[in-house]
Amino acid sequence: MSSSYEGRQKHIRTLKTPEIEVWENQYADREYVVDLTTDEFTCICPKTGLPDFATIHIQYKPMKVCIELKSFKMYLLFYREVGIFHEHLVNKLLDDLVKCCRPRCMKIEVIMKPRGGIATTVSAEYPQKRK
Amino acid sequence: MSSSYEGRQKHIRTLKTPEIEVWENQYADREYVVDLTTDEFTCICPKTGLPDFATIHIQYKPMKVCIELKSFKMYLLFYREVGIFHEHLVNKLLDDLVKCCRPRCMKIEVIMKPRGGIATTVSAEYPQKRK
Amino acid sequence: MSSSYEGRQKHIRTLKTPEIEVWENQYADREYVVDLTTDEFTCICPKTGLPDFATIHIQYKPMKVCIELKSFKMYLLFYREVGIFHEHLVNKLLDDLVKCCRPRCMKIEVIMKPRGGIATTVSAEYPQKRK
Amino acid sequence: MSSSYEGRQKHIRTLKTPEIEVWENQYADREYVVDLTTDEFTCICPKTGLPDFATIHIQYKPMKVCIELKSFKMYLLFYREVGIFHEHLVNKLLDDLVKCCRPRCMKIEVIMKPRGGIATTVSAEYPQKRK
Amino acid sequence: MSSSYEGRQKHIRTLKTPEIEVWENQYADREYVVDLTTDEFTCICPKTGLPDFATIHIQYKPMKVCIELKSFKMYLLFYREVGIFHEHLVNKLLDDLVKCCRPRCMKIEVIMKPRGGIATTVSAEYPQKRK
Amino acid sequence: MSSSYEGRQKHIRTLKTPEIEVWENQYADREYVVDLTTDEFTCICPKTGLPDFATIHIQYKPMKVCIELKSFKMYLLFYREVGIFHEHLVNKLLDDLVKCCRPRCMKIEVIMKPRGGIATTVSAEYPQKRK
Amino acid sequence: MSSSYEGRQKHIRTLKTPEIEVWENQYADREYVVDLTTDEFTCICPKTGLPDFATIHIQYKPMKVCIELKSFKMYLLFYREVGIFHEHLVNKLLDDLVKCCRPRCMKIEVIMKPRGGIATTVSAEYPQKRK
Amino acid sequence: MSSSYEGRQKHIRTLKTPEIEVWENQYADREYVVDLTTDEFTCICPKTGLPDFATIHIQYKPMKVCIELKSFKMYLLFYREVGIFHEHLVNKLLDDLVKCCRPRCMKIEVIMKPRGGIATTVSAEYPQKRK
Amino acid sequence: MSSSYEGRQKHIRTLKTPEIEVWENQYADREYVVDLTTDEFTCICPKTGLPDFATIHIQYKPMKVCIELKSFKMYLLFYREVGIFHEHLVNKLLDDLVKCCRPRCMKIEVIMKPRGGIATTVSAEYPQKRK
Amino acid sequence: MSSSYEGRQKHIRTLKTPEIEVWENQYADREYVVDLTTDEFTCICPKTGLPDFATIHIQYKPMKVCIELKSFKMYLLFYREVGIFHEHLVNKLLDDLVKCCRPRCMKIEVIMKPRGGIATTVSAEYPQKRK
Repeated sequence: MSSSYEGRQKHIRTLKTPEIEVWENQYADREYVVDLTTDEFTCICPKTGLPDFATIHIQYKPMKVCIELKSFKMYLLFYREVGIFHEHLVNKLLDDLVKCCRPRCMKIEVIMKPRGGIATTVSAEYPQKRK
Repeated sequence: MSSSYEGRQKHIRTLKTPEIEVWENQYADREYVVDLTTDEFTCICPKTGLPDFATIHIQYKPMKVCIELKSFKMYLLFYREVGIFHEHLVNKLLDDLVKCCRPRCMKIEVIMKPRGGIATTVSAEYPQKRK
Repeated sequence: MSSSYEGRQKHIRTLKTPEIEVWENQYADREYVVDLTTDEFTCICPKTGLPDFATIHIQYKPMKVCIELKSFKMYLLFYREVGIFHEHLVNKLLDDLVKCCRPRCMKIEVIMKPRGGIATTVSAEYPQKRK
Repeated sequence: MSSSYEGRQKHIRTLKTPEIEVWENQYADREYVVDLTTDEFTCICPKTGLPDFATIHIQYKPMKVCIELKSFKMYLLFYREVGIFHEHLVNKLLDDLVKCCRPRCMKIEVIMKPRGGIATTVSAEYPQKRK
Repeated sequence: MSSSYEGRQKHIRTLKTPEIEVWENQYADREYVVDLTTDEFTCICPKTGLPDFATIHIQYKPMKVCIELKSFKMYLLFYREVGIFHEHLVNKLLDDLVKCCRPRCMKIEVIMKPRGGIATTVSAEYPQKRK
Repeated sequence: MSSSYEGRQKHIRTLKTPEIEVWENQYADREYVVDLTTDEFTCICPKTGLPDFATIHIQYKPMKVCIELKSFKMYLLFYREVGIFHEHLVNKLLDDLVKCCRPRCMKIEVIMKPRGGIATTVSAEYPQKRK
Repeated sequence: MSSSYEGRQKHIRTLKTPEIEVWENQYADREYVVDLTTDEFTCICPKTGLPDFATIHIQYKPMKVCIELKSFKMYLLFYREVGIFHEHLVNKLLDDLVKCCRPRCMKIEVIMKPRGGIATTVSAEYPQKRK
Repeated sequence: MSSSYEGRQKHIRTLKTPEIEVWENQYADREYVVDLTTDEFTCICPKTGLPDFATIHIQYKPMKVCIELKSFKMYLLFYREVGIFHEHLVNKLLDDLVKCCRPRCMKIEVIMKPRGGIATTVSAEYPQKRK
Repeated sequence: MSSSYEGRQKHIRTLKTPEIEVWENQYADREYVVDLTTDEFTCICPKTGLPDFATIHIQYKPMKVCIELKSFKMYLLFYREVGIFHEHLVNKLLDDLVKCCRPRCMKIEVIMKPRGGIATTVSAEYPQKRK
Repeated sequence: MSSSYEGRQKHIRTLKTPEIEVWENQYADREYVVDLTTDEFTCICPKTGLPDFATIHIQYKPMKVCIELKSFKMYLLFYREVGIFHEHLVNKLLDDLVKCCRPRCMKIEVIMKPRGGIATTVSAEYPQKRK
């Protein structure tokens, strides 16, 4: 079973994911911050085909729209059957969320449950901060 | 019942809220910081008509006046019957509090109890920091 | 989709679950305690068809055999697609685990992530303690 | 305004409260424990007419039925407008919940937010343990 | 100044303290538990005449009446000017509180802030448990 | 009684407070930091005449002298009978302490116990940081 | 490599372990309790040949002798190269320690770091408590 | 240097220690509990001559007298130069304290800072509980 | 035995360590952060020949490749038999990891378990930040 | 006794302290950070002659040599008999440690156990950061 998962995750950048709904931000003229955190996320390890579990933390400054929570929850649910490396997951999430709500800025952190005694956390942000 | 709530929150920027009293700051010549925190706040979810609960954290540098706590408590009490999105709530609070006490600066953070496994925190500040 | 989940959970006592492997306990002559805890469990809410997440805590005194962890993990994985009430889940787990390893005694606790602001924990033990 | 609240709480034992729904317990033959906890409860102080906030913790052993969470949430919502002393609240909850689900036993704990620097917790159980 | 404090605490058992009000318990037929905790207590060290600070925790099962919190707060305020040893304080509190509300049982714990690197906690209960 | 308290706090800037002793700093040539923290502070609420309790945190860089702790403790003790708003208290403390030890810089934070469900923290520093 | 580990652990009860030194207990006439805890323990998983890590907690009431800590540390070091199941480890430790110091009673708890998302704790005691 | 320490600790039961003062308990007719805790204790390791550090926790029910804290602090200070095993220390403390205040009962716990990765806690009580 | 360990660690910079595998980073165009943490690390103290235990925390921004966790675990396992000072360990790890994955930047922190009452943490980063 | 302590601490800058050994840093070309923390420190209060206890935290960037921990421990042991103010202690430690290991930079923090309800922390760094 693991082979199909490995195949699937090879083209992770082009993987089609569900739409996320948005609603109109009445305070679009002000820069303010929205934090969303869930510890109810599971996807599939592309190597073993076994489930991985994670906490996901998203921080963004909305522009014209805010992320609608119910459809965001359904979006996360999509990964329940997807084989994907942690390092790729955070980048995929960032691309999808930036595309749907066009925020001033966004930062995503994915904290995976430990495997083999090693805990992995991956984070990415938009726009990129180069140093 | 939810429809009336949805209607009410559409014009949230023009919603009339109770007055907040202030008292004279004897140290108006010094820039100092006041923090107010309460974990006793409830409003109504405009989608479901069901109650939401939150912790509210306010930080400001007073100018000529300080916020009077009793009337501030009554002000918060007003939201007990109001349907309002979390993202709008923090902006409404900021507008009202800045207007009543004209501080050097103010920052508000609203930490909502989780819904559907997702915890939301929204924060805004005055004057705006643009980056 | 939820209807099929509701149907499936009606006969939860007779639902066929995967085998759990065991290995020979070299200290079967001594009463000692084994605790197993995992915060990586997910099943389906039979009402909404949406995922639920839980921490599962098992405590038992082995007799002739001990529970093999890898097959126990696969057993838990089975519930990923199963619609089941929390109150039934803990009883189903207890029946299956007692049957596979025939322990001196066993206690199971299931701590569900909150829904609608209410956190649920269910626990059961074998043999029953009546008061 | 406080006088009406005071009047209302005088006959708290006869105050009519909403129905709580139940569902059939498939494991009625086994004594097991269900814990429900919510930190989203508010009622009215009968002395001041101002809101009180509390965490409510319920533990029971179901007999033929389990408490349905959605209707339980609506039941708690009823107190949002009710003036009631903390000491009476826990007893009222116990009477109502025992009546609706006829459990083997039940214990309720209500942890109120502090007032005047004093934190109050009240707990009661069914059947009574006399010492 | 310390001498007067020492003198005053010698007859601590006969020291007259303020009345504590009570209100009628509508559930006098049920044995239930009330916990009161405050970390806002200060008295005077009878040796040095300097202030001592403490957290006070009271647990009781009410009979016909419950302790009224406002008058209880005024009662505690009385000790602000009283020189008293920690070991005597808890016994004095117990005598006064048992006398005012005639509970089924009561337990009092006084947790003093450390002095000279030593932290003192004193607790007493009514009726006495002899072993 | 509250009226006298209110009167007393009106001229808080000119209120005479006890002297704080200092001792010679042998390392006056080096910029280093001293932190003092006490959770044993009480004053009077000028509105109600009832006691308030606070934790006080002071951080300073000594110049020629350091604050002597025993006299500082006696200085704090003075407020036991003084009606003063939290926002004024921190400024009064800063003025008095800067005057007595002439530090390179100083920061004071006063963390009051919650009243009416609202916790207040006030902080000020010398010299002022304007932004 | 794993096969040799599996072979080695099959006869774990007869595996020869290092001596643990003891010293004379001057208070052998009194029943008192000694707790020893270390979070620096590692052994080998007999299935994979990879290291496992654990915290070990020992509680005993000494009779004529106490366990000498340095030799106990060397004893634990012996397991660094030994393949052994967690469930057997705690029993082996108990047999060896009871034999070396002949205590009034002893309880051992081994808390293993999680593997595959499952945390295991095993505990045993001497003499056995049968229920 | 260590040799002299080893010699000194051999006759620990007969080692002469400072007197501990007591004061009259005005509530000798009631069984109540006094807890004393200090994390400021140091003695000498009889093997290495190097300092050991510990937290000491004492719980007793006073009879006719209570332990005077200042002299108790001086008593503990005596061990600053004494070489003594942890297991003996708790017994010596118990003998001395029981002798000075003749309590209804007493329990002492000594929590030593870890050595070589092993943390030791020793506890003893009077009168002995034999099981 | 310690002499051989001391000899071995003298040329720690040239010590040959196992290869660490990498895999292709599909988001090499974005600067993002990967954190790896394990509390399952042990090496040998070069002075005493006894085991040391540590938590290792690694943070890096991947370029073309990411570190493969299984081979990284085997790499850490190599130190189980190696005598090395803590201060050298963190530098050796940094050199090896930077060489294998050529990251944009990397920071390593090694938190050793205390020895002789002293806890040591060592951290290094690439490229160096000079101030 | 206190007078001799007071005399001794008057010339604290010239007080002769034990040597601290160092060892060669093999990575002297890299700027990296070493943290040392111990909660086993005691000295004498120069006012009362009674012991004070503290946690000491040191952070430095080694140059050519690292601090040898055993001799550092013996160095700290020296203060067991020395009367010294907290504010002076941290400066004395900084002077001695900088002199012995000539680091790129160093920061020392001394966290004293509370006296009279006031907790003191003192910190200093090399080279000085003037603002």
